[in-house]
Amino acid sequence: MAPTTSPLTTDLYELNMIQAYLDRSENKTAVFEFFVRRLPARRNFLLAAGLEDTLSYLETLRFSAAEIDWLKSTRRFRANLIDYLAEFRFAGDVHAIPEGTVCFPNEPLVRITAPLPEAQLVETRLINIMHFQTMIASKAARMVLAAPGKILSDFGLRTAHGAEAGLFSARASYIAGFTNAANVLAGERYGIPIVGTMAHSFVQVHADEIIAFENFARSRPEGVVLLIDTYDTEAGARKVVQLAPKLKADGINIRGVRIDSGDLGAMAKKVRGILDAGGLSDVIVVVSGGINEDVLQTMTASNVPIDGYGIGVNLDASIDAPSLDCAYKLQEYRGEPRRKLSEGKATWPGTKQVWRGFGADGRMSGDVLSHESDTQAGEMMIVPVMRKGKRIAAAPTLGQIRERSTRELARLPDALRRLEKAEDYAVRVSDKLKALAAQVDKTTRR
Amino acid sequence: MAPTTSPLTTDLYELNMIQAYLDRSENKTAVFEFFVRRLPARRNFLLAAGLEDTLSYLETLRFSAAEIDWLKSTRRFRANLIDYLAEFRFAGDVHAIPEGTVCFPNEPLVRITAPLPEAQLVETRLINIMHFQTMIASKAARMVLAAPGKILSDFGLRTAHGAEAGLFSARASYIAGFTNAANVLAGERYGIPIVGTMAHSFVQVHADEIIAFENFARSRPEGVVLLIDTYDTEAGARKVVQLAPKLKADGINIRGVRIDSGDLGAMAKKVRGILDAGGLSDVIVVVSGGINEDVLQTMTASNVPIDGYGIGVNLDASIDAPSLDCAYKLQEYRGEPRRKLSEGKATWPGTKQVWRGFGADGRMSGDVLSHESDTQAGEMMIVPVMRKGKRIAAAPTLGQIRERSTRELARLPDALRRLEKAEDYAVRVSDKLKALAAQVDKTTRR
Repeated sequence: MAPTTSPLTTDLYELNMIQAYLDRSENKTAVFEFFVRRLPARRNFLLAAGLEDTLSYLETLRFSAAEIDWLKSTRRFRANLIDYLAEFRFAGDVHAIPEGTVCFPNEPLVRITAPLPEAQLVETRLINIMHFQTMIASKAARMVLAAPGKILSDFGLRTAHGAEAGLFSARASYIAGFTNAANVLAGERYGIPIVGTMAHSFVQVHADEIIAFENFARSRPEGVVLLIDTYDTEAGARKVVQLAPKLKADGINIRGVRIDSGDLGAMAKKVRGILDAGGLSDVIVVVSGGINEDVLQTMTASNVPIDGYGIGVNLDASIDAPSLDCAYKLQEYRGEPRRKLSEGKATWPGTKQVWRGFGADGRMSGDVLSHESDTQAGEMMIVPVMRKGKRIAAAPTLGQIRERSTRELARLPDALRRLEKAEDYAVRVSDKLKALAAQVDKTTRR
Repeated sequence: MAPTTSPLTTDLYELNMIQAYLDRSENKTAVFEFFVRRLPARRNFLLAAGLEDTLSYLETLRFSAAEIDWLKSTRRFRANLIDYLAEFRFAGDVHAIPEGTVCFPNEPLVRITAPLPEAQLVETRLINIMHFQTMIASKAARMVLAAPGKILSDFGLRTAHGAEAGLFSARASYIAGFTNAANVLAGERYGIPIVGTMAHSFVQVHADEIIAFENFARSRPEGVVLLIDTYDTEAGARKVVQLAPKLKADGINIRGVRIDSGDLGAMAKKVRGILDAGGLSDVIVVVSGGINEDVLQTMTASNVPIDGYGIGVNLDASIDAPSLDCAYKLQEYRGEPRRKLSEGKATWPGTKQVWRGFGADGRMSGDVLSHESDTQAGEMMIVPVMRKGKRIAAAPTLGQIRERSTRELARLPDALRRLEKAEDYAVRVSDKLKALAAQVDKTTRR
């Protein structure tokens, strides 16, 4: 279940505009599309995420009596708006590219078709959910591609940008192929596998490190990951070797060790050597601290004996690209295509479809962006997901979305799978859409 | 009132450690301190923020019956932990540097003194709140310093990292001196002044731009800010001039215009010229799109006629430094100082105090970090704020915190007020604290 937030999580201008629309009964059908304008410097593709949370938001959007009272108390709005909000239920149509799908700039991830005030009201929160989850899934996908077969864990809640960023990061990275997350709420809310080791403080409260290890292992006999770098990492590993037989005699297995400081690659090799020499070849080595996709790629390329990675703020805040240039734009009103012409921010008008071509090898070979009515060759990417405010089909499980993402990443051309910037993937604008844009430009009365 | 989140907004390892502590009744008094390890490349100081939300979190931290049932259902925890969490109330002491205070690396922003499991349980969310709000307040302070006397508005909710990031950004930037925020919830939750203009879509749904302007103004007669760049910015400004007398005749004033694209400085000058020539010298010019502290400084230095700035993701995601290297570390247990020695991550042991010196000009001249018991010259920065889980005094209002911030920023040395990196502000570690660290190193059994 998605997190619920107050419907006041919106920009004031949405309410101001709705006030003006209601005053003049300007409530014909509007079509808005959410899309990313361009990729960050070091991204070759996007992985769509956030749709199910967006649909949950639309389904449950209600103003409580207390929120309505507060809106009244501001004296900013007239009775027609207050009444409208008090009764508000989203009853529009939604088309979207399914979650876990690879996509590119200018391709609409979500399309909202609804009476104008309704389509306008949902703008801010829709962007807020879709932007962040797509950004994190796209970042996480790079990490997944850089570390095939490794355990990847989202450790980023503490320095995520607030509680919801931590929760959404766990979800978006799990979709992209992460193994699990440390955030307990991600387990409760989304059913994501949760994982936890221990903190340095646990070692520090004990008089001796080995006593700390033993106490922790005895409290979690199903298998613990011991943090071994509080004082001296190699000494920590030797203590694990020393302790293991005693625990084993009592039926307790040590699952792994974690290293959180120093030269992680060099130290992992030393620790692996100590563990193996001590007969603990089944104990895994997990590292954390400063992990990003470049570190993962370097470790993978040099075959460093690391089994798992705890990834924090590089994931949860998408440190190298903490935002995407994106927009939610009016594309049609009263059946007529619309287009914004602002300098450097012009958009393609009308309701659109994306068609994807594939090569003989099954890899993506190029997309066409067309008007919805203009059929092209290839796989149709945008599908209806909500009609009159109701989901058309049951929500996919997170596991299903994750499987789609795995299939999608496997269909990426090799050049796009690399961390470095590749030549842009081809997204051709159909001739009819270009003609439509030219026609809108001519007829727009400025 | 602060946002409430599920207490499951925590890392699993906190619960794992508490399980082990409870199993051995390891519940003596622990002292943890939250601090920032180092400044990002282009920061000269931090502005402390997030304390009141942290205290609200501590005061209201409860596990609901449903959450307890879910924890049970995971079969990860034994009855002693489940019972402990079901009855959990935070009853510890809190010391802190008040919100809105300038501070520096290694200075404890918050100190928690409580039985060990209690102090451990609150780690993740405490960091999550303090890290983000301090990061945003510190970023916002740079913008405030770069644009003296200007209207600064937080427009960043849509591309903030989730709903809470948008809310916290509005709060932290308001503390730092921002004028207002677009986020309606920031008004309801924190009483922050809210502000809103209009979107391009509003213009696009109308057959003619000037009709859009008129309709919007008539619906909000108390004064609107009209967005004039949907098609052609100068033409938009001329339409405002054309429309103003007609509206004025009906008692409606246009408060301002907004430009959201193109060369903002050049366009603002042209628009100012058109408005002034049209007798609208009281209509303000607001710009948005890509605004950061460098843009603000350039505009300020060149005296561009811009009255206000709408600032989005550069603020809400602190784009140039979207995280701070920070920690919540055990400093004392059972009355004995503790210290982490991990490579590159060593900490100063014991409960600490920060003493601030001032020059004859009233500006900050250097801090001393000492053990709490080691009195030094200067102003004492860390004060008690909560005793046995209860606030010692009523929470300051957001206005009071904002006033403190204004005073604090005025006491910054000139070098630290600049956007470029200055020489590090002096934070001296007292001799006794160094001696204590050496002693802890000697006595720690590894």
